[in-house]
Amino acid sequence: MIPVAVEDPADPRLAPYAAMRERDLVGRAGRFIVEGEVTLRLLASARSRFRAESVLLAPERWPGLAADLAGIDAPVYLAGKAAMSAVTGFPIHRGVLAVGLRGPEPGAEALVPPPPAPALVLGLAGLTNHDNVGGCLRNAAAFGADAVLLDAATCDPLYRKAIRVSAGAALITPFARLAPDTDWPALAARLGLELLALSPAGAETLDALDPPRRALLLLGTEGPGLAPGLMARVRTLRIPMAPGFDSLNVATAGAIALHRLARRAGPVHAEAC
Amino acid sequence: MIPVAVEDPADPRLAPYAAMRERDLVGRAGRFIVEGEVTLRLLASARSRFRAESVLLAPERWPGLAADLAGIDAPVYLAGKAAMSAVTGFPIHRGVLAVGLRGPEPGAEALVPPPPAPALVLGLAGLTNHDNVGGCLRNAAAFGADAVLLDAATCDPLYRKAIRVSAGAALITPFARLAPDTDWPALAARLGLELLALSPAGAETLDALDPPRRALLLLGTEGPGLAPGLMARVRTLRIPMAPGFDSLNVATAGAIALHRLARRAGPVHAEAC
Repeated sequence: MIPVAVEDPADPRLAPYAAMRERDLVGRAGRFIVEGEVTLRLLASARSRFRAESVLLAPERWPGLAADLAGIDAPVYLAGKAAMSAVTGFPIHRGVLAVGLRGPEPGAEALVPPPPAPALVLGLAGLTNHDNVGGCLRNAAAFGADAVLLDAATCDPLYRKAIRVSAGAALITPFARLAPDTDWPALAARLGLELLALSPAGAETLDALDPPRRALLLLGTEGPGLAPGLMARVRTLRIPMAPGFDSLNVATAGAIALHRLARRAGPVHAEAC
Repeated sequence: MIPVAVEDPADPRLAPYAAMRERDLVGRAGRFIVEGEVTLRLLASARSRFRAESVLLAPERWPGLAADLAGIDAPVYLAGKAAMSAVTGFPIHRGVLAVGLRGPEPGAEALVPPPPAPALVLGLAGLTNHDNVGGCLRNAAAFGADAVLLDAATCDPLYRKAIRVSAGAALITPFARLAPDTDWPALAARLGLELLALSPAGAETLDALDPPRRALLLLGTEGPGLAPGLMARVRTLRIPMAPGFDSLNVATAGAIALHRLARRAGPVHAEAC
């Protein structure tokens, strides 16, 4: 891989990096942006579910990344930070960007191991905050979840900030978008998973749960939470909290539950450090 | 409490709200900024450790907050969002601000219940990210920690963004700043607490721990973690994670450990929803 210097911010090869913030909002037609060394290394690794279309580095970042990028099938462009900032439309401090390709999106059935294998799946319903979605992906990766399923209202794990908050987990943890009318209990039954919904109003405590071998853990938004009609139809769990401040971030609450469920479901965990 | 309309952005009564972002960086000499309804309600409540100096609201926000502010001993100013934005220097969307007074800072000894009472204390070492400090305060409140102790390098829980991320917990959970040369093991011994440090390289797993009745849980930065010299002198715990992605956010890892420790130490927990 020999990098190519690109001096002109108007060079068409840099067009996918243009007006970055504005295009975060409108989408990129099958592309997404990765920024920073940790996430670029994951994108370039064999563990990534996605392929890089191109990489854009400040020249001084190339020596430290050359070995990681040796095997990728995509051009590496070098441009000074001033040129990078001119293209993207805001200051690029770290000088490490890439464009990834979404490729075809798998369905939930393709991602969840069939019975009788153990399975741990995270479901996100109505999570419209990119930090929370990124945090949930990170926690799913840390506790070896097989897949993350997203309802139609949940925001995109490949949004630039969500990837960053996920520490790159959005690139390696399988996720699938559900059809707008998907019924969670019916989906769980079809996949052979026990549906568990985490809620401050849950009927059982998490600690009293005997973790099922195949679980779908469902998280809703912090404010309204899961719809009452759905809550009435699923097994609900709560995390006991201090009186007067029963408020955990949704990704944090999910991490506590994934930690508990991962004891039995999901892949074997590394015990070494 | 009768609110006072203030029309002129240059009115000296609004001076503590001026150039808000710039002054976030340099400090406010005993004052701090609260923004948003949830945190203002906490500041105005009997649970707050801090007193409001003044409140600044968009006029349309007053009716919804009048009852909450009935008892505070501070003026409430009303100004349109355009005037508020002119004072603060950036767009104020929610129209809810207040200035709080830090007051005298207690020492760690004053915050930790003496033996033989149960105690759960969170220690933060070198946490320089405001989101993480805010998240740690929120989790400490949720799991009923008695106090949070901050080393000299950890950033301020009363920084504007840290308060917001803490969901207001920074206003109600007692915290104390330690002297720059504080030795954690010596401090824990003096307070009669068992020191437990969370680390990916911990010697024991969290799940195997028999939670001590009086615990000081120490969290370090995500990157470098706790200093090796310190790690060698304390009992270290790890959270088992999936192979190849042993990366949890420090506040999230702390929440998992607080959830475990809160079973025995700390106050009784609300089980109702």
